[in-house]
Amino acid sequence: MLIDVISSVNEARTEELTNRTVIVIDVLRATSTIITALNHGCAEVLATETVNGAKAQQHPEDRLGGERSCRKIPGFHYGNSPLEYTADDLKGRKLIITTTNGTRAVQKAHKASRVLIGAFLNAGACARTAFEMKKDIVILCSGTQDVYALEDGLCAGALVHALTELYGEGIEVNDFGLAMNYAFLRTEGQLQDVLLGCSNGKRLMKLGFREDVIYCSQFNVTEMVPVLVDSTLVPHLPGGSKKKVVRS
Amino acid sequence: MLIDVISSVNEARTEELTNRTVIVIDVLRATSTIITALNHGCAEVLATETVNGAKAQQHPEDRLGGERSCRKIPGFHYGNSPLEYTADDLKGRKLIITTTNGTRAVQKAHKASRVLIGAFLNAGACARTAFEMKKDIVILCSGTQDVYALEDGLCAGALVHALTELYGEGIEVNDFGLAMNYAFLRTEGQLQDVLLGCSNGKRLMKLGFREDVIYCSQFNVTEMVPVLVDSTLVPHLPGGSKKKVVRS
Repeated sequence: MLIDVISSVNEARTEELTNRTVIVIDVLRATSTIITALNHGCAEVLATETVNGAKAQQHPEDRLGGERSCRKIPGFHYGNSPLEYTADDLKGRKLIITTTNGTRAVQKAHKASRVLIGAFLNAGACARTAFEMKKDIVILCSGTQDVYALEDGLCAGALVHALTELYGEGIEVNDFGLAMNYAFLRTEGQLQDVLLGCSNGKRLMKLGFREDVIYCSQFNVTEMVPVLVDSTLVPHLPGGSKKKVVRS
Repeated sequence: MLIDVISSVNEARTEELTNRTVIVIDVLRATSTIITALNHGCAEVLATETVNGAKAQQHPEDRLGGERSCRKIPGFHYGNSPLEYTADDLKGRKLIITTTNGTRAVQKAHKASRVLIGAFLNAGACARTAFEMKKDIVILCSGTQDVYALEDGLCAGALVHALTELYGEGIEVNDFGLAMNYAFLRTEGQLQDVLLGCSNGKRLMKLGFREDVIYCSQFNVTEMVPVLVDSTLVPHLPGGSKKKVVRS
């Protein structure tokens, strides 16, 4: 069983994704936001690369969310703050979301056998869901503008660590994944401070999103894993999970 | 003061290197080998990208070293095993060396203000030498065929850690450098096992170079730092160092 961690979207080659389970990570904030929306009753999430793509696919009942330069897009219902996505208004509806890095990574992952959405919020459940799929795994860190982002790497490390415990012997992790595992183990228990101190954490704080960074640094607080089914993301619980997805 | 760690040679853009101190790392094995050669009396080292480039610049007294596919190049005096470079034959002579990844990284670094050669063997002295140069620092991991290599990343982390202690407050480390620092701190004290378990470590062991991996995992065993002067690498000791370079 192979586990490869890829440092940013542009580093991913399509042939590396085919016939694998791909876990997309954009901790600050796209994948944390998608998890939160589906966990609070949103019916499904369509991730698009462009603003025009999002608008073109909107039906009257759908909600639009996302950001450019960390800010809400004019005319959209929501920005990219996960804290906005607990709204009653979203329950039972389809969300169409576009962000600078995360939704581009989801698009790239469409070539995979299965696509899962991961963040610190659901890391343990995400690892168990990937494990159940019994295929080689690629953990795709979104990064920021094609540059490595610490929070995505550490979350990848958390997934590698959980997968290593699930598989035991007989897995092969690429060197980048080994490094992320070591870095995660060094920072476990202090994720909030580490995320507040990384490049995106500092940028978000300057823009007034400190609470978002703190929210996204929570570890294993939900069992829900968004999975891609027919081009939209829907909620999934790994086998054996006792917690239910919160739905409207 | 900025410290940027770059994950592999192809990730380095020339404009990022200009007017900076660049530390080139290829722990397994090029930079460990260059350090060892200069520490045992070799007069200077010329790092070339190609085999033909090495041969073309050879004067009768010079020695040729290097590898392709981890193996000694036909007609060359030495391979890329650091343990070969303690030979008396090399004392006082110029070494021309070409390897798959490390010497390419040295070539790329020529655009920098100053170029230093780092490995676990000289990490502390390398950090102090870079600190003395009072410029922003780039730590360039060679990687393997443009893919991240764990041993180079951990050595970069060791340098970031040492530089952080030297500078105290007021330095800014890029996210990748922060991750490497965390990974190094997690693996400190077990470098030998970690290097034997990484991708290049396993490859070298299969080829019979286990002793090289063990040798290269030694931490801070020399004060000598190769620095680039007029296109060749010569030995340098950081200020305050009490140890002398071993010379013929």
